[in-house]
Order: sequence, then C-alpha cells, then structure tokens
Amino acid sequence: MTRQQLYEQIQRKKSYLCVGLDTDLNKIPKHLLKLADPIYEFNRQIIDATSEYCVAFKPNLAFYEALGPDGLHSLKKTVDHISPDIFTIADAKRGDIGNTSEMYADAFFNYYNFDSVTVAPYMGKDSVVPFLKDGKWVILLALTSNSGSMDFQMMEVSSIDHSDTKLFQQVIRHARKWANEDSLMFVVGATHPELFKMIREIAPDNFLLVPGVGAQGGSLKELSETGMNSMCGLLVNSSRQIIYASSGEDFADKAREQAQYMQKEMHELLDRLL
Amino acid sequence: MTRQQLYEQIQRKKSYLCVGLDTDLNKIPKHLLKLADPIYEFNRQIIDATSEYCVAFKPNLAFYEALGPDGLHSLKKTVDHISPDIFTIADAKRGDIGNTSEMYADAFFNYYNFDSVTVAPYMGKDSVVPFLKDGKWVILLALTSNSGSMDFQMMEVSSIDHSDTKLFQQVIRHARKWANEDSLMFVVGATHPELFKMIREIAPDNFLLVPGVGAQGGSLKELSETGMNSMCGLLVNSSRQIIYASSGEDFADKAREQAQYMQKEMHELLDRLL
Repeated sequence: MTRQQLYEQIQRKKSYLCVGLDTDLNKIPKHLLKLADPIYEFNRQIIDATSEYCVAFKPNLAFYEALGPDGLHSLKKTVDHISPDIFTIADAKRGDIGNTSEMYADAFFNYYNFDSVTVAPYMGKDSVVPFLKDGKWVILLALTSNSGSMDFQMMEVSSIDHSDTKLFQQVIRHARKWANEDSLMFVVGATHPELFKMIREIAPDNFLLVPGVGAQGGSLKELSETGMNSMCGLLVNSSRQIIYASSGEDFADKAREQAQYMQKEMHELLDRLL
Repeated sequence: MTRQQLYEQIQRKKSYLCVGLDTDLNKIPKHLLKLADPIYEFNRQIIDATSEYCVAFKPNLAFYEALGPDGLHSLKKTVDHISPDIFTIADAKRGDIGNTSEMYADAFFNYYNFDSVTVAPYMGKDSVVPFLKDGKWVILLALTSNSGSMDFQMMEVSSIDHSDTKLFQQVIRHARKWANEDSLMFVVGATHPELFKMIREIAPDNFLLVPGVGAQGGSLKELSETGMNSMCGLLVNSSRQIIYASSGEDFADKAREQAQYMQKEMHELLDRLL
C-alpha cells in the first residue's frame, strides 16, 4: 500500500485507527475455547466487527509465537482474512545482521504478506535496510510508550553533524537518510505528547505509528493536535481497550462500539485539524 | 544451566565454541531436500557431529520463521534433540513492552525450552526484565559485529552518573543493575577486538557471546587474549564456517572437522590464558 492509498483510506473512513491484535488465550471469551482455532475465530470476529472504523490491523507477534507453530497458523489465517485495502503491521520489533534481517523480511513480507514490520534500530543501518522492499514499509522504533523508553532513547548523545540531541532524535535523523517517507514510518508513544511537535520538526512527512493511547494513558486529542500533518500522518493504535471490551459472547459487538467511539473522536479531529 | 555448570562444560570439553544453526534451505546439501523435514535432518546431523567439540548451540530464529509454522516445528524438534548439558541460545533479538516481552519469554523458555534468549536493549529495563526467569539467561545486545554497530552503539552519550561514554557502555552499565552475572550475558562482536579490554573493566564477570569470528573476520586469538576471565567468560560463535563446510553428502563430517579445528585452538588458548 502506498502512502497516498493509506491517506485515501483515512479520508474515506474518517479514521486513523489501528486495531492491535494482541490476542491472548487467557483473555478471549471462554466460549471460543472449545473451537478448533480460538485465536483465529476471535480475530476473525474482531476484524469483521471493526474494519469499518479502522485503517490498520497490528498483530503482535509475541502472542502468536507463545503458542508455537499452531499460533503462527492462526496468524497466517488472520492476515489472509484482512481486506487488502486495510494496512497490516507485523509488530515484531526485529533487527539483526543483514543476512538475518533478509530472512525476517522474507517471513513477514512473503510468507505472511504483511504491508509493514516494526524494526528495532539498535543494530544500525544494515539491520534495517533489508526490510526496505518495494511496496512494503519499515516502522522503526524511535520513542516507545513504555517506562523503559527513558533508559536509553532519551539519553543525550553527541554526533559530528548535529549539536547534542537525544538518542531517539538521532535515530530519526539517521533513518531518514536510509529511506524516504514513502517506505519509512516511526513508532512514537502517546505517552510523550510534549515531544510530538519537536518530532514533526525533524520528520514532517513520515507517518507515525502511535501506541500507548488508552490502557497506557496517552491522550488522542493532545497527540493529534501536535502530531498531525497534511496527510494525517498518524496511525493511532488501540489494542486491549477494543479487543477486550467485553469478555462475553458480545465481545465483537462491544469491540465495534469501542472502535466506533474512537473513530468518531478521530473524525472530529480530522475535520478540525486537517 | 548455571554459570558454574557452563564453566564445568567448558573445562570438560576444553572448548568455548557455540555452533550457530543458521539453517537455510538454499544452502543445505541437495540430497536432504527430498526428506520430510530437511531442516531438522540437517540440524540433527550437525548436532550429532559437533556436540563433542562445542558447549552451546544457537539457532537463529529468522531462518526458521521464514518457513512459516513448518520452520517452527523443525526448530522445536532441533532444540529437543540437543543434549541437556549443552547450553541453548534462541538468537531472536527480541524486546518489547513488559506484557509482550512476557509472551516472548513464554515462547522461548516454556514452549521451546531454550536456556537463553538474545534481547535488544533499545526499549529499556521493562522490556528486558520479563526475560529474567529462574535458571534462564538474558543475552543482551551490547556491541554487535555488523557495520551498523557504528551507527548508534558507538555514539557518545552523557548521563548523570558517569562521564561521557559510548551508548553500548551505558547499556552494559545499566543492565548490570537489572541482573547479575548469573543470569545476564552480553553480545560483543569479534569485529571489535580492541574494545574487549575496556568491556572487561565494566563487566568483569559476565559471559560474553561473541559472533563475528570467521565469515565476518574477527580473530579468536585476539579476542580471547583480552576477553577471557577466570571462568573463561566467552562463548564464541561460528555458524557458516562450520555448518556449511561442505555442501555434499559429507557435510556432517566436514562440520565435525571444522568444529574440532576451532576446539583445538580454544584448548590451547584455555591452557595458556586461564
């Protein structure tokens, strides 16, 4: 999916919502557990219920890997079930030496046919560029939503070509030399709303994938006001708040309601800010 | 496996060799491809041929994930085939917010029953500590062997409690507050031999997992002379040089010869340096 196509979906649906599929056997409704593939059945119903209100789905690989090969079967069926006009994100946070990153890219882009993968920057350029495939996207970790983001990402660093800045700023600056905004997004947590303005100064055109709204406490309004650009430029993720809105047989209906609720707020923000 | 048990294996075998199982369908001998599970069959023969000369095996997750769920089946059978007195490393380079790292830990430690997993430090403390399970090990990326290690890991950073140092040094200093040397190792590439002395000053007792000998150009002698501590403290990995020593039907014999060749050099270094 191109940046333009993603923007058209945002305009059509009046939404920049990404639904995170952190699907956990211990949290899905009990009545699904007697089915042959409860993980897929849960995802299928969530996807069908929320596709009208979101522009992206983001399965979190850890939840599928924890179930061994069976979990990966459920993942494959899940991705296959998502309509091609919805952007898909493998939330995998991979990154390794070149020949290994190539194998991960093969897994996510060719085997599962995801549109994008989240990548960790610590190993540098040759760990990231193998994921830059035609028509596919790298979503690079810049400033994450968790408390550990303060440990290294916020460290002051010095470099030859810039005055002292924080590590996550250097990650953004460097990565923008490796790829342009048509194949590179950044992860920026909603828990750092005060930093979106500064991030937009160094990455005006890149889409930002924003976790941390809801359960982790970030404010949609606040981050949208400073983070939105002329093509929206935001994919705001919500996982638990939507997919676990109910633990009963009405889970898909309640997920739809939650997604619709967030889409309505996004519609107002798009009308006001874009 | 405890640190003492690992050291005893090193003393018994006179080896600190780790064999990397980067098993690629495109590189294994052609005669295996007609078997039901060529990946497992290759690994089984490599493991049987080299176990006498190594103390660890390190499957690289990317190579198994690229094959979808079938690859993970091959991985599970591979890990099950390794003798319990040999240390097993899931080379996965994971790291995510706490509840997600918990799921990865569940996958590698409970489903596959690995002794250890490689973890990326970018997301900080709460992304690493979920992997610190009783009797299991975190092997944290510090200074990797690839060219991209120069991009961020070597950046000068400033922090409150130390004078200016490089990012990878801060990663080591911080992580040593999260866990001691009985559950924490670091990845340090053999391509930076000049830095082992300094790393030993900040991490005297931690084991170091050292990739980059052989195909990537690092020198076993040089890194051993500066990196070895009183319990050896080194696991030196070799992947391609051993497992792809021959592409014919004699691949296991040639792998054994290569492993034995490296073990012999390690024996001499242990006798001289320990």
